[in-house]
Amino acid sequence: MRQRFQGIGASRGSALGRARVRRAHALEVAEERIAAEDVEREIARLHEAADSVRREMRTLRERLHGALAHEVGEFLDLHALLLDDPDLLQGLDELIRVGRYSADYALRLQRDRIAAVFESMDDPYFRSRVEDIDQVIGRLHAALHRHDAGLDGAAGEIVVAESVAPAELAKLQAQGVVGILTSTGSTLSHSAILARSLHLPLVVGAEEAVQRINDGDALIIDGSSGLIVVEPDADDLRAHRQRCAELKRERRALTRLRHEPTRTRDGIDVRLYANAESREDVANAHALGAAGVGLYRTEFLFLQRPQLPDEDEQFRAYRDVVLGMSGRPVTIRTLDLGADKADETGLALRDEPNPALGLRGVRLSLARGALFDTQLRAILRASAYGPVRILVPMVACAEEVHAVKARVARVAEALRAEGEAIAPHVPLGVMIEVPAAALALPAFVDEVDFLSLGTNDLVQYLLAADRNNEALSDLYTPLHPAIVRLLHGVIRLAHRRGKPVQVCGEMAGEPLFAPLLLTLGLTEFSLHPGRLLEVRRRIRDLDLGRLRQRRNALLRGRDRAQLEAWLAAADAA
Amino acid sequence: MRQRFQGIGASRGSALGRARVRRAHALEVAEERIAAEDVEREIARLHEAADSVRREMRTLRERLHGALAHEVGEFLDLHALLLDDPDLLQGLDELIRVGRYSADYALRLQRDRIAAVFESMDDPYFRSRVEDIDQVIGRLHAALHRHDAGLDGAAGEIVVAESVAPAELAKLQAQGVVGILTSTGSTLSHSAILARSLHLPLVVGAEEAVQRINDGDALIIDGSSGLIVVEPDADDLRAHRQRCAELKRERRALTRLRHEPTRTRDGIDVRLYANAESREDVANAHALGAAGVGLYRTEFLFLQRPQLPDEDEQFRAYRDVVLGMSGRPVTIRTLDLGADKADETGLALRDEPNPALGLRGVRLSLARGALFDTQLRAILRASAYGPVRILVPMVACAEEVHAVKARVARVAEALRAEGEAIAPHVPLGVMIEVPAAALALPAFVDEVDFLSLGTNDLVQYLLAADRNNEALSDLYTPLHPAIVRLLHGVIRLAHRRGKPVQVCGEMAGEPLFAPLLLTLGLTEFSLHPGRLLEVRRRIRDLDLGRLRQRRNALLRGRDRAQLEAWLAAADAA
Repeated sequence: MRQRFQGIGASRGSALGRARVRRAHALEVAEERIAAEDVEREIARLHEAADSVRREMRTLRERLHGALAHEVGEFLDLHALLLDDPDLLQGLDELIRVGRYSADYALRLQRDRIAAVFESMDDPYFRSRVEDIDQVIGRLHAALHRHDAGLDGAAGEIVVAESVAPAELAKLQAQGVVGILTSTGSTLSHSAILARSLHLPLVVGAEEAVQRINDGDALIIDGSSGLIVVEPDADDLRAHRQRCAELKRERRALTRLRHEPTRTRDGIDVRLYANAESREDVANAHALGAAGVGLYRTEFLFLQRPQLPDEDEQFRAYRDVVLGMSGRPVTIRTLDLGADKADETGLALRDEPNPALGLRGVRLSLARGALFDTQLRAILRASAYGPVRILVPMVACAEEVHAVKARVARVAEALRAEGEAIAPHVPLGVMIEVPAAALALPAFVDEVDFLSLGTNDLVQYLLAADRNNEALSDLYTPLHPAIVRLLHGVIRLAHRRGKPVQVCGEMAGEPLFAPLLLTLGLTEFSLHPGRLLEVRRRIRDLDLGRLRQRRNALLRGRDRAQLEAWLAAADAA
Repeated sequence: MRQRFQGIGASRGSALGRARVRRAHALEVAEERIAAEDVEREIARLHEAADSVRREMRTLRERLHGALAHEVGEFLDLHALLLDDPDLLQGLDELIRVGRYSADYALRLQRDRIAAVFESMDDPYFRSRVEDIDQVIGRLHAALHRHDAGLDGAAGEIVVAESVAPAELAKLQAQGVVGILTSTGSTLSHSAILARSLHLPLVVGAEEAVQRINDGDALIIDGSSGLIVVEPDADDLRAHRQRCAELKRERRALTRLRHEPTRTRDGIDVRLYANAESREDVANAHALGAAGVGLYRTEFLFLQRPQLPDEDEQFRAYRDVVLGMSGRPVTIRTLDLGADKADETGLALRDEPNPALGLRGVRLSLARGALFDTQLRAILRASAYGPVRILVPMVACAEEVHAVKARVARVAEALRAEGEAIAPHVPLGVMIEVPAAALALPAFVDEVDFLSLGTNDLVQYLLAADRNNEALSDLYTPLHPAIVRLLHGVIRLAHRRGKPVQVCGEMAGEPLFAPLLLTLGLTEFSLHPGRLLEVRRRIRDLDLGRLRQRRNALLRGRDRAQLEAWLAAADAA
């Protein structure tokens, strides 16, 4: 039966698909039957879940010691016994095979059956065992769903869930999911920003819809208006096709902006650089009229390979980028590895308890001096082929700036002595992503040639909130007065000392944030080439003079709601 | 033979003991024989090391996939073969048993023997295998030393090492180690600060001594002058006893400060509160004349026990503290758990990739509302027995302050409705330890009653440097211009708005930092009771008027060296 619900459009695009509902802790599973050919797969799924619960309980058991091992261990042993009770698993198999129930529904039936047996007993001990049954069943259920999470989407599906973590979005899209509908979330959440950059339609805040929609319902969601239609009729389908066609036209129109300048309505020029790490990124950057490469990541050269790249291999990679941009400046960031991503290189430390606060970026480079020198040599040699800048990540103090400058000077001197034709001056800049560097900028700003604001890490450290931690996705946002003030302070100081400053975090690639960044004085952005035209269009729609009149209101914003309101007003302006 | 060396005194006290040398990667092991009765223990130690290397290589092997598994896996397989070659391990056993060599020395002999065999071969393939032998031996050696690290000190020993991590110090002292001598380090390092608070003599920067001293040498180190004497003579021993007696007298003299006010030379009163979590801390705080409890930690109530404490148990614990301080104010910090320490409670999230940036402190409390309410009820009920303040950890934004205030108001109202005699106003304060809270303070300062600067976490987040990560111990320091400026900003704003502000991190308990904190305007410290009298003595020696004249120099400090120089000059003043 056709139903309509209203949510909040968070990522544009109209999606038509089959609902894939993922409910949290839903032991009230509706009766669900499966096809005969799916029976064995479903049983296998259940057994995998049981295996995973066994492993989980074994790990838990091993971790216990002292008094706790005694107290909690007993229950775990009991649960392990229950789990291996043939009555439980074989009974489940039969329910799936004979009754053709889904594993979830079979679990629920089996739970009710066993509980009824226990509850009918006179002995209070046995009666209380129902709790344990519930816990074992609960663990199985959770394991089934974890398993689900790994397979969550399939081609043509719209995922319907309480929330979707940023990390899941790209995977879902790769699996062919065409849209996402959530009961919680906001248009400025980390997930929403990512969905827009993936062009994946997203509707948030649709609590009622998420509760009512059943797995398998046909669904249309409109990421602009927030409209949701369940079991659409012919008119709905026509409207959907029309919206798709419009969006397509609009995207085509966007490509015409390739050859247009990035200039505000009142004539202020903004430079859009590209973030890049592949040859394809560089080609795109060039084709879309990027002012240069603002952030060339070098990690990919080091990862997923048995040995480190030597100087010549690095040199050729960097030179390719320089040549690929035919004269536009290329900013090469030195190795930004840490324990989070460097496992296989053996460069970083293993097992840091907090890799985000560990030996990464310039810290690792300075700790592995020979490796750093090799990279600097390769970058400097590439400077003979076009304008190159060096960008150093994770700088936290003036001492690191001095150490890096000394190394660059030594390496440059050695190269000149060897007769290499390196550029007379290769500008050296630092990422401002560690809060201490932003606050202590006066201590070293005169010693660097340019600055690049890495808002992703800056926000993470300022808020002490891991950007990949789903439990903190509400907390992690650049719309915090501390971020606004810190960005403002850095930009103002940089301008005063005549140092170019760009922003290269996710903020730069999100058109919604453009008014905020412009108002704070930024005129250089570095962003993923796929976002370049949208940001250009946004900037061309803005009037910087009018935005500046509202700068004080921005700086006075006390919380997220006020900053969101400021952005909404910028939209209206 | 008697030898003298000069290091830098970093933690006062004269120590006499047997040298326990721990050298990094020391395959140049000196010939070392062991006693007959230690032979079997030494062999067991070696076999444990071999087991640990086997596990390590297995784990490594499992982690490999793709091309890497092919390339690197081959070597690992070869290494595993070598390790299990009876020639290697049995030969080692024999060297230990017959030759009575230490495991380390036996390793070296065996390495040289096998290498000689390989090198004598004509086949270049076999000759190149020496490298593999070295790698396997190196792994065994590292494993032996890891094992050593677990047992590092014994009663009466002075540990001689390149460096000692903060985390190791307390363990070493508990094992009876009487002093530490390192080749690297500074008097203001994290380890030095901790050594002082443990009254564990420490001499740093003694490179030559660390190289020359042998395991088992008799040693005197003087943590004041930095003097090191190897194989001391009668005069040295007399001088040592004299220094010990002096220090004892001085410590006794310190106890006379119990009844003295904490007042600078120019008559400014400073309040010293105590950090506490045990009954003993509270008794000490009272006896030492603390102005109150500035930070009562509540985590211990929740840890290492199978179930959570209920309201009454918490209430009794909090009331005990309030009664124990007989009328002086008690600041109770709400639960500050996170994935790092809460494993066994099941409250926090498991397996956060960066627990320090995770769901901890107030975030966890707000996510577990019922639990938080229980704690708030217990604290408010304790307020009927004396002055109580509530302190909320890990606040990052104004929204959290609003949420906490609303909860406190609701709980207080309920308690009053139930007829409880809670105080008419229980002040609510927040920890300033997340950088964003410090920067966005204007957004919520008017809504709280007081502030407490948690410098440990603040430094960690500002510098993006895990304070427990040994690899970053040089980077982690409060002597960074960003810290100085941020503290200054918070204190100035708090004063302007009439809000009391205290500092309760490790900085507060380190007498060396007292001039810096006073100069920034602080007059409330909360510190471990064991440090109270030393800090009081330090403050009584200072002239705030003269310090203030040098405030601009402090705020202009550009790096650690300049800030250390500022502190040194404060000493001279």
